[in-house]
Amino acid sequence: MEFRSESPNSMDVPSSIQALAQHKHVRCIVKLGGAAITCKNELERINEESLVVVCSQLREAMNPETVESQGKVLGMDWSRRLGASIDSFADDFDVDSTLVSDSGFIIVHGAGSFGHFQASRTGVNKGGLHLPLVKAGFVATRISVTSLNLEIVRALAREGITAVGISPFACGWSTQGRNIACADVSQITKALCAGFVPVLHGDAVIDHSQGCTILSGDVIIRHLAQLLLPEYVVFLTDVLGVYDRPPTNPNAKLLREITVDEEGNWSIIKPAPGDVEKQVEITVASHDTTGGMETKILEAAVIAKLGINVYITKAGTEHSLRALKGEITDDWLGTVIRSSKKLSPYT
Amino acid sequence: MEFRSESPNSMDVPSSIQALAQHKHVRCIVKLGGAAITCKNELERINEESLVVVCSQLREAMNPETVESQGKVLGMDWSRRLGASIDSFADDFDVDSTLVSDSGFIIVHGAGSFGHFQASRTGVNKGGLHLPLVKAGFVATRISVTSLNLEIVRALAREGITAVGISPFACGWSTQGRNIACADVSQITKALCAGFVPVLHGDAVIDHSQGCTILSGDVIIRHLAQLLLPEYVVFLTDVLGVYDRPPTNPNAKLLREITVDEEGNWSIIKPAPGDVEKQVEITVASHDTTGGMETKILEAAVIAKLGINVYITKAGTEHSLRALKGEITDDWLGTVIRSSKKLSPYT
Repeated sequence: MEFRSESPNSMDVPSSIQALAQHKHVRCIVKLGGAAITCKNELERINEESLVVVCSQLREAMNPETVESQGKVLGMDWSRRLGASIDSFADDFDVDSTLVSDSGFIIVHGAGSFGHFQASRTGVNKGGLHLPLVKAGFVATRISVTSLNLEIVRALAREGITAVGISPFACGWSTQGRNIACADVSQITKALCAGFVPVLHGDAVIDHSQGCTILSGDVIIRHLAQLLLPEYVVFLTDVLGVYDRPPTNPNAKLLREITVDEEGNWSIIKPAPGDVEKQVEITVASHDTTGGMETKILEAAVIAKLGINVYITKAGTEHSLRALKGEITDDWLGTVIRSSKKLSPYT
Repeated sequence: MEFRSESPNSMDVPSSIQALAQHKHVRCIVKLGGAAITCKNELERINEESLVVVCSQLREAMNPETVESQGKVLGMDWSRRLGASIDSFADDFDVDSTLVSDSGFIIVHGAGSFGHFQASRTGVNKGGLHLPLVKAGFVATRISVTSLNLEIVRALAREGITAVGISPFACGWSTQGRNIACADVSQITKALCAGFVPVLHGDAVIDHSQGCTILSGDVIIRHLAQLLLPEYVVFLTDVLGVYDRPPTNPNAKLLREITVDEEGNWSIIKPAPGDVEKQVEITVASHDTTGGMETKILEAAVIAKLGINVYITKAGTEHSLRALKGEITDDWLGTVIRSSKKLSPYT
């Protein structure tokens, strides 16, 4: 029994991989943290101000030329909500308008105040899909996270970025014991090869052992990085990076450089050892179903081990713009997590 | 080079197919026509009144028991928009609430006034993805159709139906010369096996020869029917069915029964030959990028040839409810398209 299309082209994964091999490599995978783009303590509230700056910086990092041609970027959110009429769009299309295409960027966003509450209140992350409450929570979570995904795609499109939303659940991604079991990325490579910017998100997915779980944006980032080997990975969040103590503590010190060796052990390089707490404390928000900063650091360490630099910094700052461009200088503020075998990116 | 997950479970399509084989068969694939659920001539306007009735009828057809337990259906659209607060949902969850799960239904909707204008104005259906206007149209079309998909999933969830949105583009579906080239349905079978109701939609997709095109809901329905062999297929639209002349013509006669033979030729059975125009005229709305009633009939004929009855009728009527239940009686109004080898469903 065969459930694929019967046409001669039904198994075109190889051509898609071939196309990717010909495609310029993936330049950057960006995580837009839920804390950076939503108001974390208010149900389903986007941090519009932050999102606008993030999208503008993404445009600049993807295509610096668009900064000079301001006003001529082609926005692509042609929605009634924005006052468009049937006749208005496309008619005044300017052939000189700039589209941000073929950037080699992939964007993954967290859920923040979308989805997290629905998931944690019903226990979607703990499984038990046979229970009506969990199944209802699964549906409610997906509605919430996909509505955030749509808003982020819209915001990117308004900046002229050729964003296309891709839901892990819709891709058929699933887990086994909460680890990724099936996550074919051919859809993503196809979208990249066609010049689009795929926009994925943390999602409720089927888990083959416990029924269902939440697949976090951080785990998705690590999985994509392992398969697609980007030049660098950026995590944008609501603090400047990883601290030795909770960042609300006035004595907290920003860890500016961490290395990961082949065994996965990590060492703090900057500030110099002795200046920081030995036991780095981790804060996890109570409603965060996917582990907060702890997961982020663990996933970042796996990526760094591959020789891919990971930059963690605060969204909407000069530091986030530089991270997105991959241009780290001595006055850059944030946390670099890198392989102990690689040179420091600080210049 | 391998872009799948490295874990031992990465190729779990066979297990998914196995699961489907164990699953009770697909009962019904429903097309919600764009004309039935949107206001076709007004940009991005949902026909709320029609959509509410359609969702309620779907619930009744999927699970007749929920009709008796009115007021106890578990709505699952826990959004801020509906006035929910962080603390409100799940707390008052009633374990006796009814969820509409494991129904064996798949829903596919058209675009109506969502997406069609963006696509036709920019020529997404004609290809040429290297052109900025077409690429922009592709992004704008996807934003529009996915926003409609989200609203339909919400409306279904409010009726207690365990709806999950699945975008063909996100599934990696693609075409070659506008025919489906790659359309793996394992994501859909997984969702069905987990008890969900997959909700797909007409979408902008990659086309391997012309760059891109619009994959219509009608083509998706035919493809799913061929692979999943449902008991019956229902097309809900804004007229009672297929007429011998444009339905606006006062002399137009509703064709109540059409048979398709093995060669794909079709014969009008009801009304009796002679009572109807020999040459059936087809109306296609000018902004309809995917062919209107003509495509619908051609795709329906392919499905009927497989021995699967196709019921075309008007959404939100007693006739649509009966079609969704698969209960066709002599006073049912609509068009049945069936194989010439099968008995008439009229009783």
